[in-house]
Amino acid sequence: MLDGQSEIRVLAFDIFGTTVDWYTGVTTQATEVARDRGVELDGGELASAWRDRYLPSMNKVRTGELPWTVLDELHRESLDGLLEERGVANAFDESARARLVRAWHRLPAWPDAVAGLAELREHYILAATSNGGFALLTNLVKAAGLPFDCIISAELARHYKPDPEVYLTVAALLDAPPAEVLMVACHNWDLGGARAAGLRTAFVERPLEKGPHGQADRPGEVAVDLSADSFTDLARKLADLRAGV
Amino acid sequence: MLDGQSEIRVLAFDIFGTTVDWYTGVTTQATEVARDRGVELDGGELASAWRDRYLPSMNKVRTGELPWTVLDELHRESLDGLLEERGVANAFDESARARLVRAWHRLPAWPDAVAGLAELREHYILAATSNGGFALLTNLVKAAGLPFDCIISAELARHYKPDPEVYLTVAALLDAPPAEVLMVACHNWDLGGARAAGLRTAFVERPLEKGPHGQADRPGEVAVDLSADSFTDLARKLADLRAGV
Repeated sequence: MLDGQSEIRVLAFDIFGTTVDWYTGVTTQATEVARDRGVELDGGELASAWRDRYLPSMNKVRTGELPWTVLDELHRESLDGLLEERGVANAFDESARARLVRAWHRLPAWPDAVAGLAELREHYILAATSNGGFALLTNLVKAAGLPFDCIISAELARHYKPDPEVYLTVAALLDAPPAEVLMVACHNWDLGGARAAGLRTAFVERPLEKGPHGQADRPGEVAVDLSADSFTDLARKLADLRAGV
Repeated sequence: MLDGQSEIRVLAFDIFGTTVDWYTGVTTQATEVARDRGVELDGGELASAWRDRYLPSMNKVRTGELPWTVLDELHRESLDGLLEERGVANAFDESARARLVRAWHRLPAWPDAVAGLAELREHYILAATSNGGFALLTNLVKAAGLPFDCIISAELARHYKPDPEVYLTVAALLDAPPAEVLMVACHNWDLGGARAAGLRTAFVERPLEKGPHGQADRPGEVAVDLSADSFTDLARKLADLRAGV
């Protein structure tokens, strides 16, 4: 647990699911692209299936089966397979597929994200710390107006979370000991990786992260230093810690 | 020259001198530290002499005489020599020297910088692209409230400007062809390097960059695509180009 003595200087935020609502964003954009092409497609089902391939696709890089490959390309490879499986490959040409891959560059922030980050930014350095590529994250953060101080993509480490290299890159680039970096995420696998690398961890619950039918991670499933149900709640809890409450 | 047909997507801004006034900032802070130590020291003279060692110190890395070394460490090595030469080495202990090195992390923005960047940010991706380390730049941009979209320190390339690797890292990380990146700087050596790497270039004149007695670079000394006398002037000129004026 954190206490008033623990110095935290940097907050590293996971993005997909934690800061932005990928499910709604990808569902909406996939539905639009399908409609433009005159194809019957369940956007929500595609979004979920696509995201299901997220960790397995990165594991190919993590295990060395693939050399370093930026997330856009992994997304594209997964998408190609999904369209094939659904028998709609012919309806999505190169430009439609590129548009779908770009859907991940423009996703809506959770309602508390901008206000919570703005408050936290008064006290900490805020880094967007995601497996998304540097360009993707820069586009996404800009479009959603998220007040981060810097983008630290996994691309800078050429490793994917939960590899320790990503978390340690945040600490190294910001010249902070790992114990002064608090990783904020709604995923247990991410917080487990951060903790193993020596960072502090905060779980933020995002019950709708995987859409209305998906099962999001719940608090209490892994050991963390803090738990919150929104970024504004996190800001309050950190303020209490600073005040020694 | 740029015309209305040239697509520019990214503006890469040099920082020391171009975006912030290092001379005033370092002079003020060096004067304060010296006063706190009860030492007679001309802060402006120290700032100028320190900056004079900037390019030579980085050249040691660029030529391979030194392995990759972050700017804070080069600053520290230069400072140690300068204090020695001035016969005041004993008056500056470890903490005073650390404070002086940190002076480069907190420098005042030129009066037009925030407004100009805010306007440009509506149309382009803005990257802080400096030889300063990633932590230094993040601290500096945050303290001065500069509305950049991302920090792309030379540290990410492990090369110093004007090595082409730095400029090409900006293009690669932001997934833009070099010709769609406009390097903005008040230094001819920086713009020459950017141009050689295939970027577009904009000179912004900062006549006081080197203080009241120094000689800043003047427009027209090297070939560039655009010239401006402030960031707001640059925003106006780019708006004219977009409008085909």
